[in-house]
Amino acid sequence: MRPEFESPNPDFERAVRQSFAKQSAMSSLKISIEALGPGWTEFALQKSDDLTQQHGFVHAGVLGAALDSACGYAAYSLMPPEAAVLTAEYTINLLRPASADRFIVKGWVVKPGRTLTVCQGEAISAPDGELVAIMTATIMTVVGRDIEG
Amino acid sequence: MRPEFESPNPDFERAVRQSFAKQSAMSSLKISIEALGPGWTEFALQKSDDLTQQHGFVHAGVLGAALDSACGYAAYSLMPPEAAVLTAEYTINLLRPASADRFIVKGWVVKPGRTLTVCQGEAISAPDGELVAIMTATIMTVVGRDIEG
Amino acid sequence: MRPEFESPNPDFERAVRQSFAKQSAMSSLKISIEALGPGWTEFALQKSDDLTQQHGFVHAGVLGAALDSACGYAAYSLMPPEAAVLTAEYTINLLRPASADRFIVKGWVVKPGRTLTVCQGEAISAPDGELVAIMTATIMTVVGRDIEG
Amino acid sequence: MRPEFESPNPDFERAVRQSFAKQSAMSSLKISIEALGPGWTEFALQKSDDLTQQHGFVHAGVLGAALDSACGYAAYSLMPPEAAVLTAEYTINLLRPASADRFIVKGWVVKPGRTLTVCQGEAISAPDGELVAIMTATIMTVVGRDIEG
Repeated sequence: MRPEFESPNPDFERAVRQSFAKQSAMSSLKISIEALGPGWTEFALQKSDDLTQQHGFVHAGVLGAALDSACGYAAYSLMPPEAAVLTAEYTINLLRPASADRFIVKGWVVKPGRTLTVCQGEAISAPDGELVAIMTATIMTVVGRDIEG
Repeated sequence: MRPEFESPNPDFERAVRQSFAKQSAMSSLKISIEALGPGWTEFALQKSDDLTQQHGFVHAGVLGAALDSACGYAAYSLMPPEAAVLTAEYTINLLRPASADRFIVKGWVVKPGRTLTVCQGEAISAPDGELVAIMTATIMTVVGRDIEG
Repeated sequence: MRPEFESPNPDFERAVRQSFAKQSAMSSLKISIEALGPGWTEFALQKSDDLTQQHGFVHAGVLGAALDSACGYAAYSLMPPEAAVLTAEYTINLLRPASADRFIVKGWVVKPGRTLTVCQGEAISAPDGELVAIMTATIMTVVGRDIEG
Repeated sequence: MRPEFESPNPDFERAVRQSFAKQSAMSSLKISIEALGPGWTEFALQKSDDLTQQHGFVHAGVLGAALDSACGYAAYSLMPPEAAVLTAEYTINLLRPASADRFIVKGWVVKPGRTLTVCQGEAISAPDGELVAIMTATIMTVVGRDIEG
């Protein structure tokens, strides 16, 4: 979960926090950074009554957004300063109903790469520590071309 | 995209709309039902400035939530009235930046089943019709036991 | 299933057939090319008694190999002559037991890209035409560097 | 990787080995059981010159078959004696070229369930210990109905 990598960007923590702060979706979805290091992130997701599914649990898509960001920023923390990051794809497996009020959402790099970085993540309900969802994501490094590409 | 199935629930449209209305996340994420039939759904997703990623595009997790719901309700439309629906897993591939202001999000059943229903979905930017994301989802039918199970 | 693309390689059909012929796994697994065009392939998979699972059906991994190759070569058909192709990831959903003796396995490009090409595929039992499995695959173009990279 | 579960089948090891022996694909693909316990398996995959891709590496589909079986039997080891097992879907991420001659392929249960069991797996090249591929799989328990269903 906390792999040992060295980042090519000595200022990676600030880069991650600045980019995260620009994602308006994160504060709207009640997702915040708890901790981060080179190749890993730990976010918190707070249940919000206006982001539930039909049984009153956190919507799977909100869990997906939190896990996607946790994985994406884990990858981003290992990229050079001039790089941008795009999610190519992710798979999420929902293991238990997300019935808790708070979740810890972790992302970590499994395999860094010049072009593609593969990450995994997990969402754990707090405080009971049940594994609620897991993700595997493929993150793409984009350097020196329009992000629109 | 609009497969030909018959629903065991003659009132499937009302069942879908009632369940959808209970998902507070749908209105918060600006997702609405455009049309639906037995085995398919068509939703609209409106960009909201408080749900973007760092480049100002709709956050991938929000697209994921819309596609997950479109797939889940496509499956639900073919279930008996007493059934509940759970997403077991989904894979989303992000094909282009979600830079439009509005998206059409479709879900349809590929293979219905007593226990598992496999659906696919796509998100298309409006009005230019570009394919932005695709999803494959495994949806589980839950009957006669606690949804918490 | 047969998208309309133009290949940057005028000789794409020969390139695909030459590379396919170098995959010893294809003949060992009884997979052959039926037809192909720019951005799509159609393979046949013949059941072999030494490649079954515990109920005597074609092993899911063999279907996966056929679908992966069908998707990979659909992508390769749209690549420049100097490019090599690598599968980054794929998801396969198994919809019905693969109880037939022969399958048609199709792959097609959903979104070509300079670096990543997203393909989908399907395996259909012959002659009854039942959909047995679907795949979504992310294929990477590798140019001008060691394939080992 | 070696989770702590208890199997409802006191004879799970024999059940797994008997079912594995019936998969003719396993011996044809040079896949063998190294070790297994309740909720986990460890297989070996030996490179065979007639099962390679175009660069002479083990074909991704063969890795996929080995990982699928490792995951499926990890799930099966936790099932009651009368149950059968079916793979519903799997996602494989290929992290490095499979250029070694031998691989250790592990599968383990992440979340057991009455109907669905989620497993993960990894393929490691031997003897250098490089992580070559990872898998997440959804395995379905089938009891008391025709496996053809």
